[in-house]
Amino acid sequence: MSPLLSHNSYGQSDVRLLKISRRSTRHEVADVTVGVRLEGDYDRAHTAGDNRAVLPAQAVRDAVYAMARRRAVRQIEEFGVRLAEHFLGGDAGSAVSRVRVELAERAWERVGVGGRPHDTTFRGSGGHRRLAVITATGEGADVESGVEHLVLLKTAGAAYQGFARDAYTTLRDAPDRVLAAVVSARWRYVNPDASYGLLYEKVVRTLLESFAEHESRSVQHTLYTMGEAVLEYSPEVAEVRLAAAGGIAPLADPTTPDIDAPNELFLPTDAPHDLTEATVRREGMAGELRLLKRGEGRRGSE
Amino acid sequence: MSPLLSHNSYGQSDVRLLKISRRSTRHEVADVTVGVRLEGDYDRAHTAGDNRAVLPAQAVRDAVYAMARRRAVRQIEEFGVRLAEHFLGGDAGSAVSRVRVELAERAWERVGVGGRPHDTTFRGSGGHRRLAVITATGEGADVESGVEHLVLLKTAGAAYQGFARDAYTTLRDAPDRVLAAVVSARWRYVNPDASYGLLYEKVVRTLLESFAEHESRSVQHTLYTMGEAVLEYSPEVAEVRLAAAGGIAPLADPTTPDIDAPNELFLPTDAPHDLTEATVRREGMAGELRLLKRGEGRRGSE
Amino acid sequence: MSPLLSHNSYGQSDVRLLKISRRSTRHEVADVTVGVRLEGDYDRAHTAGDNRAVLPAQAVRDAVYAMARRRAVRQIEEFGVRLAEHFLGGDAGSAVSRVRVELAERAWERVGVGGRPHDTTFRGSGGHRRLAVITATGEGADVESGVEHLVLLKTAGAAYQGFARDAYTTLRDAPDRVLAAVVSARWRYVNPDASYGLLYEKVVRTLLESFAEHESRSVQHTLYTMGEAVLEYSPEVAEVRLAAAGGIAPLADPTTPDIDAPNELFLPTDAPHDLTEATVRREGMAGELRLLKRGEGRRGSE
Amino acid sequence: MSPLLSHNSYGQSDVRLLKISRRSTRHEVADVTVGVRLEGDYDRAHTAGDNRAVLPAQAVRDAVYAMARRRAVRQIEEFGVRLAEHFLGGDAGSAVSRVRVELAERAWERVGVGGRPHDTTFRGSGGHRRLAVITATGEGADVESGVEHLVLLKTAGAAYQGFARDAYTTLRDAPDRVLAAVVSARWRYVNPDASYGLLYEKVVRTLLESFAEHESRSVQHTLYTMGEAVLEYSPEVAEVRLAAAGGIAPLADPTTPDIDAPNELFLPTDAPHDLTEATVRREGMAGELRLLKRGEGRRGSE
Repeated sequence: MSPLLSHNSYGQSDVRLLKISRRSTRHEVADVTVGVRLEGDYDRAHTAGDNRAVLPAQAVRDAVYAMARRRAVRQIEEFGVRLAEHFLGGDAGSAVSRVRVELAERAWERVGVGGRPHDTTFRGSGGHRRLAVITATGEGADVESGVEHLVLLKTAGAAYQGFARDAYTTLRDAPDRVLAAVVSARWRYVNPDASYGLLYEKVVRTLLESFAEHESRSVQHTLYTMGEAVLEYSPEVAEVRLAAAGGIAPLADPTTPDIDAPNELFLPTDAPHDLTEATVRREGMAGELRLLKRGEGRRGSE
Repeated sequence: MSPLLSHNSYGQSDVRLLKISRRSTRHEVADVTVGVRLEGDYDRAHTAGDNRAVLPAQAVRDAVYAMARRRAVRQIEEFGVRLAEHFLGGDAGSAVSRVRVELAERAWERVGVGGRPHDTTFRGSGGHRRLAVITATGEGADVESGVEHLVLLKTAGAAYQGFARDAYTTLRDAPDRVLAAVVSARWRYVNPDASYGLLYEKVVRTLLESFAEHESRSVQHTLYTMGEAVLEYSPEVAEVRLAAAGGIAPLADPTTPDIDAPNELFLPTDAPHDLTEATVRREGMAGELRLLKRGEGRRGSE
Repeated sequence: MSPLLSHNSYGQSDVRLLKISRRSTRHEVADVTVGVRLEGDYDRAHTAGDNRAVLPAQAVRDAVYAMARRRAVRQIEEFGVRLAEHFLGGDAGSAVSRVRVELAERAWERVGVGGRPHDTTFRGSGGHRRLAVITATGEGADVESGVEHLVLLKTAGAAYQGFARDAYTTLRDAPDRVLAAVVSARWRYVNPDASYGLLYEKVVRTLLESFAEHESRSVQHTLYTMGEAVLEYSPEVAEVRLAAAGGIAPLADPTTPDIDAPNELFLPTDAPHDLTEATVRREGMAGELRLLKRGEGRRGSE
Repeated sequence: MSPLLSHNSYGQSDVRLLKISRRSTRHEVADVTVGVRLEGDYDRAHTAGDNRAVLPAQAVRDAVYAMARRRAVRQIEEFGVRLAEHFLGGDAGSAVSRVRVELAERAWERVGVGGRPHDTTFRGSGGHRRLAVITATGEGADVESGVEHLVLLKTAGAAYQGFARDAYTTLRDAPDRVLAAVVSARWRYVNPDASYGLLYEKVVRTLLESFAEHESRSVQHTLYTMGEAVLEYSPEVAEVRLAAAGGIAPLADPTTPDIDAPNELFLPTDAPHDLTEATVRREGMAGELRLLKRGEGRRGSE
């Protein structure tokens, strides 16, 4: 028997950075968490302990910091593409054949003082995070954008009824229920050289508004409707992948049946367990989308 | 030897509830986590396994739900005082001599649709939480209000210099540094029957504005200044306890000393380890503040 | 434009259960967390809100509980295959075409009393967990077993040197270093109807012993060696996927250079960020392994 | 109004260290997390931003590392007392009047190879942690030892019945129930200069054995019995504080009432919410125990 190394990768996750731009009296902040994974011809490192082709993880992490030091961090998609190009470039070793860069940006908002946003004081937002995932090879870079952890609640306009029943189904038809879900979305572009930041704001707004205005018949129905709305209002988007983690239960109360408060008290959870996923794609879009070629990104926007 | 039971308590933590008020087409939501701890004469339960004086934890939890079902959940301080009075009342067993109720409220904001806040769609805020702690005996109830997890950042107006040095001190004087801190505050009242909700908004605003406008010489200096501002602007507050968890490091870069970007790139942390506490009290306020007597709370406000 | 639903799934994660077997005075416990994901023809649920084909998540969860009630929970692989067969069976709705069941088992060990394992008292082990992943369609079931969160440390027999260097590499060659890693492994079978429990014990023992006895030249080198050892000692295993999360730093101390204690003090981390993956496959094994056919599993072993 | 600074403290939490002793071919490891909190005369730092009395948190943290570099880390109580004495000593500034040092040690066990514990390979135990808390002033040091996160389960020998009932009590009497609890204990000494390590092993063994052999009538009854056993078998212990977080529910199954498996299937939780506390003290022990005087600890044992 001779064992084969059929797959391998290495890298760094959770490289945290906070970049402060002080070019005017009004400071800007970018708070980004970066993960880098490298694949390539590292067979002899595994089979013989020969490390000559392997850049150490320390250098991978510090390359992220050096890039953040050299350049503004505006659109995480653009920052990620630069990083991927760096690791595919000669300096980091010719062994690398494929790079995946994952970025998550946490929002900081300006503290208001006397009704005006302060120039140099910020509050961290604990809510959703903006995402980007870059997967690059010598052929080019696939760019995916996203948002995670939108915590949403509808107290009207949601039903769940007419579902399949088996021997274990005890749930009753609910013509009027509360719908709570933690929603994330990821989208890919018709043309990967997009105005990422403007589009991000627009997609998030579309997700929120379609969630609010939709008459929901199920989580599946709602996710599809949200995806459909993103494709309708943002022609730049070719495909959107949605996921919802739900789970909120009406609190039955056997001891106070005399109190008339149906559908008012619920048990929320911080670890929702009902998971639903749907991918909605623009018709005519092939499964494989166009890649961003080297140097093609809109560097001007930085 | 005869062992003594010198202290005991029991209760429930993390009782979660979401109350939806549908009295008009504009719904209201309250998302509250409650903990209850009971102390009293439970000696025979411990020493002899005689449970006759002990209300089971299940009943403690369901009493919270029953109260939330019966009443509106507006100000968590008032809800907590009602709960404490319930457990001290005869129904829950005469053994209870002291009750502690801790409440934390997570904010939900309305989703904006077409520029207007939606009536029945909400987003969970992942940031700070409003707190209340009620400690009650037959004498009355001590009411404490608070806020936790304000994530704050100053990119200007902060220094740290002239500190003590010992053999292990390597930190350099910083006339201009970035100050990042996760701040919490708890306050007690000159008169415990206060307008809790209005005061909460005002105290949080004061904390944010004083953090923004203050020229910080240290975290201690900043905390004290924030506490002083709360006492100055809110005469209802007798004492405020502040805590800050800090820790953000400039990223030194030995490999790119030629790049001119001092004080721009930082390493944030999600688990800050520098802890600072300060309690600021209004002069003339005795250590023990006035208690809220039974039935004295402003029930009208519900 | 007409949007296409190109992918969808739904299910339940983190269904927790503790099964106690009391068939003799010596009790047995099984503590298992189950996730179920269903795929199938749910298009009209998404596009039209027609739920007739969709079994609610409540019923999915309660089917797990009903199965655990009816049968012993011995080998999680067998329990998972039964569950997958249930969901593919007619009762749960003919829409299901593919089921994924993920199981994680936490070990409980007997408390020793007077040198003997107690019959009915157990301690929860906080360490590694046993895993199984079943992916099933009408064609049959793919069975994967595993272990996660083996926390390992070598204080001798580990080096890291001769690696690639770029402009950002500051790490020095280390002929003698400490190697700390959180290791997980997943394996698939030459014949999926295996003695899962015996093999699990053997594979974990092989992983630990090969980690201990190996002269490590890098994490890659160590992972490959561990995978090679599993294939050598367990002919039932066709392929093993290994992952290591590492990261432990020697603590430099500029203030006490006179103290002679090199390589003694380290900074451990609970969130290691160096991630390395390697898959080692038995030669001659095709990428697609044999599936377990319906009813083929060794039911006798329960 | 003139605000008063009525309390203040600062320090570092979660200072992690792993100390490896290589004095023989059989290595030893100590994995300790340290927190330090200093109180003292820091008024002018708060009120005037005058930092001259304040040692920066960086120096506090690096003093922990320097101490770990200089000395063996054997008994965390002794290591903590040394640290407290250091911070109260002149070097760290005369402002310090009170120091609290909290230590938690995670166990690493040797990996077995060929039936023998390996000299230089270890597995991290994910279970309970050993604790020590030192509170010191110029008067001396109070030493508390402990253990946290013992995850325990009794499948026989536990009942809960005859408890108080109110309008919200739905729980039924259970003559035979499953008792699951996450237990922690902290103890203080008749004579603070004790053989900490030997006593720790003995106390943990007593806790486990008394939990196993006890016929439980309630969690209160069990905690008291465990505390009583510690006092009986360890005359060095003056007082033991116990806490249990419980919560495990039998899974009712309305859909399969015909299946005869009562009391077999349970819903475990990772976040138990029933909290019970009891402190058991040796008779005749005053509330305030003897302090360890400066230099009094058994240094020989290191």
